[in-house]
Amino acid sequence: MRHVLTLFELSSAEIERIFIVAEDLKTKLQQGVREPILPGRVMALLFEKPSLRTRVSFEACMTHLGGATQFLGAEVGWGKRESIADFAGVLGQYVDVIVCRANQHARVEELARFSGCPVINGLTDLAHPCQALADLFTMREVFGGLAGRTLAYIGDANNVACSLAVACAKLGVRFAIASPRGYQFEEGFLKQLQQDSPKCEVTATTDPAKAVQDADAVYTDVWTSMGQEAEQEERRRAFAAYQVNADLMAQAPRHAIFLHCLPARRGEEVTDAVMDGPQSRVLQQAANRLHAQKGLLAWLLGSQG
Amino acid sequence: MRHVLTLFELSSAEIERIFIVAEDLKTKLQQGVREPILPGRVMALLFEKPSLRTRVSFEACMTHLGGATQFLGAEVGWGKRESIADFAGVLGQYVDVIVCRANQHARVEELARFSGCPVINGLTDLAHPCQALADLFTMREVFGGLAGRTLAYIGDANNVACSLAVACAKLGVRFAIASPRGYQFEEGFLKQLQQDSPKCEVTATTDPAKAVQDADAVYTDVWTSMGQEAEQEERRRAFAAYQVNADLMAQAPRHAIFLHCLPARRGEEVTDAVMDGPQSRVLQQAANRLHAQKGLLAWLLGSQG
Amino acid sequence: MRHVLTLFELSSAEIERIFIVAEDLKTKLQQGVREPILPGRVMALLFEKPSLRTRVSFEACMTHLGGATQFLGAEVGWGKRESIADFAGVLGQYVDVIVCRANQHARVEELARFSGCPVINGLTDLAHPCQALADLFTMREVFGGLAGRTLAYIGDANNVACSLAVACAKLGVRFAIASPRGYQFEEGFLKQLQQDSPKCEVTATTDPAKAVQDADAVYTDVWTSMGQEAEQEERRRAFAAYQVNADLMAQAPRHAIFLHCLPARRGEEVTDAVMDGPQSRVLQQAANRLHAQKGLLAWLLGSQG
Repeated sequence: MRHVLTLFELSSAEIERIFIVAEDLKTKLQQGVREPILPGRVMALLFEKPSLRTRVSFEACMTHLGGATQFLGAEVGWGKRESIADFAGVLGQYVDVIVCRANQHARVEELARFSGCPVINGLTDLAHPCQALADLFTMREVFGGLAGRTLAYIGDANNVACSLAVACAKLGVRFAIASPRGYQFEEGFLKQLQQDSPKCEVTATTDPAKAVQDADAVYTDVWTSMGQEAEQEERRRAFAAYQVNADLMAQAPRHAIFLHCLPARRGEEVTDAVMDGPQSRVLQQAANRLHAQKGLLAWLLGSQG
Repeated sequence: MRHVLTLFELSSAEIERIFIVAEDLKTKLQQGVREPILPGRVMALLFEKPSLRTRVSFEACMTHLGGATQFLGAEVGWGKRESIADFAGVLGQYVDVIVCRANQHARVEELARFSGCPVINGLTDLAHPCQALADLFTMREVFGGLAGRTLAYIGDANNVACSLAVACAKLGVRFAIASPRGYQFEEGFLKQLQQDSPKCEVTATTDPAKAVQDADAVYTDVWTSMGQEAEQEERRRAFAAYQVNADLMAQAPRHAIFLHCLPARRGEEVTDAVMDGPQSRVLQQAANRLHAQKGLLAWLLGSQG
Repeated sequence: MRHVLTLFELSSAEIERIFIVAEDLKTKLQQGVREPILPGRVMALLFEKPSLRTRVSFEACMTHLGGATQFLGAEVGWGKRESIADFAGVLGQYVDVIVCRANQHARVEELARFSGCPVINGLTDLAHPCQALADLFTMREVFGGLAGRTLAYIGDANNVACSLAVACAKLGVRFAIASPRGYQFEEGFLKQLQQDSPKCEVTATTDPAKAVQDADAVYTDVWTSMGQEAEQEERRRAFAAYQVNADLMAQAPRHAIFLHCLPARRGEEVTDAVMDGPQSRVLQQAANRLHAQKGLLAWLLGSQG
C-alpha cells in the first residue's frame, strides 16, 4: 500500500505513469466518455481547513470514475474523541482512500501510519503534492514535454513551492525561486531534495527579475496563506517587490506562461493584467487538478489498491 | 449553454418539454425504474441559506439519473476568498451544473455570467423557478392540462409568487393574487411579465375572497420568509386577514385544490384543517419537486449540456 | 414497510437472514466484488449528534450497493422550521430509507410514524440496534455460531447495552451485565425484554468478575456518553471498579474475546493492554458495522422496500 504525502514517495517513472493515465482520461472526458474504472470505490475527504478546488475536483474525480466521496470536516473530531490510531484504523476499513487536509503535516503522517488504506495529502503546512502534479501536468501539456524546461516561482517558499520543487527535481525541470529573506526554503528541505534527486537544478535568489529570465512558466501564490492572517501586514511589506505584474512578465521569455494555484489575491501577488492576460493558464491549470488527481487515483487504487 | 435563473429564460414550449420528460421519468420511477441517463454527471449545490426540500430533492434527482451531488454550504466562502469570477470559472470546469441558493439574486446572475456550466436558481430573493415548475406540473397532473385554469395566490408577493406568475403567464394559466398593500408585486416586475407574455392574465386585489372565486388552485406561502424574522410581528398584523382557512376555501369552487410550497407555519398562513384536508395536494406537490427538477436536469444537461 | 428503531421489531429469523446476507456480501467484498444490488437508491442520514463510524460505514454501504447517501446534520432544523409530520412526509417521498441519530428516542419514533419510507435508528438515548447487529455478527463469525454463547457487558446499562441485551435474547446468547447501582437496567426494559423473549437469560450483578466468569465475549463502552459530560467526574467515581483490564480479562475464560463499540477512552473503561491485546476484536467489530448494515439495508430495501 502506498501513500502520497509529499512527492518524495513517487519515482519519476511513477509520476510519468500518472500523467499518461491523466492525459488519457482527460481526452476521453472531452469526448464525453466517463469510464467507471473505480466502481463502488469510496474516498473520504478528511479536511481540517476549508477547501474549494481540492474538495470539488476530488469529488468530481470519484464520480467520473464510478466511485463516491464522503466529505468529513472538522466536526468528526479525529484525535479528540479518540486516538488517531483508533480513528484511522476504523476509517481505513470503511473507505478505499483518504485525502487529508491538515494544519500540521505530522497529522497526515500519523493518519497514514495507522490507516489501512492509502492516504493522499490534500494540503498541509509542508506540502501540496496534488497541486504540484496538476501544475507540472499543465506545463507538460502546454510545452509538449518537461525535460529542460524552467519553472520560476516568485514569492513565499511555502508548501506549494516545496512540492513544486520536488516535482521539478523528479521530472528534469529547472526550478528558480525568488523570495525575500526570511521566506526562503529551509536548509533541511534543500538537503532532502538534493539527496532525493541528486541531479536537480534549483536556484534561489532574492531578485524576481533574475528568477524569471529563462522561465517557461512564472508561478506565484498568495503572500498570506490560510492561518497566517496575523502576519498579513508584515508579509505585505516583505513581498511588496515580488508582485507578478506586466513589468515582471516582460523580463521573462515571450513564450512563458503564468501559473497560480488559486485562490488569488488580485492586486497583491498578481495583477489583473497578468491573471487575465494572454500568458495566463490559470484556468487550464485549475481544470488539471481534476485530471491529474484522476490519474493519481486510478494509479493508486488500480495498480496498488 | 442555458441558465435557469427566473423562468423568463424558458419558452412555453421548453417548459412543456420539461414537463413531458418529468412525467415520463415519474411514471418510470413508480414502476421501479431509475434510468441512469446522466451517468457520472456532477451537480454542485451552492447554498447560502439552509434548505430541506430543494437540497434533498435535487440530490435524489441526480442519484436516480446516475450522477452525483456536491453540497457546498456557506463555508466555501465564494466571493470572499477570491472573486466570484475566479470562483465560478474554476467551479464550472469541475461540475456539470450548479444549483445556487443565494440571498441576493445578483449573486446568482454573477455566478452564471462567469460559470462555464449551466446555473439553476435554487431560490433567491427574487425568484424560485424550480418551485413554480413543480407547482404547475402538479396542477397539470391534477387537472389533466393547464390551459384556461386559474391559480389564486394569497399572501406576500414574494419570490415564489413572482415565479408562479411567470410560469402561469407562459402556460396560459390565469393568475389571481390577493395581498395587503405594501406586499404587492412591484410595478417593474409586472411590466416585465407583460412584455414577456403579452397575453398573460394577472389580476391583483387586496381581497382574498375575490381572488379565490374562480380558482382551480389556492396557493399560499409563509408570511415571514427566511431572513425577514425582524418583521415578523408587523407581517402577522398585515397578513391577519389572509389566512387560508376553511372559510376562504369555501369561497373557491368545490374542485379547487390547495397548494403550499412548504415549510408551512400551521395556524398562521394556513390552518391544519386545510393543510390536512381533502383539497390539499401539498405532499404531491412536494414530491413533484423531485420529478419536475429531474425533467429540468435531463433537458438542461441532455439536449444542451 | 418496516422500521428498525430498537431490535424488538425484528424476529430471530429475520436477524439470522440479515446475517446471512451480510456474510455473503462480506465474502464478495473481500473477493473484490461490489454488487450494485440497490442501484439509484437514496439514503438520508439525519443526524442530531456527531458520528464517525455510523456515518462513514452507512455511506460506504450505500456506495458499495450502488446507491447514494445524503448527510443531513442539525442544520436542516427538523421540528423547528416545520412540524415533524410535514418534514417526515416530505423527506420520505424523496429518499428510500432514513437513518436517524437523535438525542431522544421519541424523535425517531415520531419520524417513523410520519415517514413514507423505512427508518433505521442510528443511535438514540435508548437503543443502538445497528451496533448490536454488528456485535452479534462478530461473535457469530468468531465462534462459528451464537447459540449457547455468553456475552458479558461491563459498565453503564446504556443504549448499547439495551440493544445488545435484546439481540442476545433473540439469538439465544446469555447476557451477563455488571453495573454499579444507579446505572443498571430499568425495570421496564427488563420486563419488555422478558415479554419479547420469554426464554432469554439475563443476569445482572454489581461484580465484574462474576459477570465475566463464563463469558465468550467481554464488552464495555465509555462511562460518559455524548451529552453526559456534566456527569463525568461522578461517573468516573461510580465506574472506577469497572475497568476492563488485564486482571478482569484473566477472570474470563481464555478463549474470550474483547469487544468495544468505540470510540474508547483508553485508560478509563479499558486499558491499552486489552484494547491492543490478542483477545481484542475491536477492529473486526468496527469493520462489521459495514457488513451488518449492508445486510440490514439489503434486507430492508430488497425484500421489503
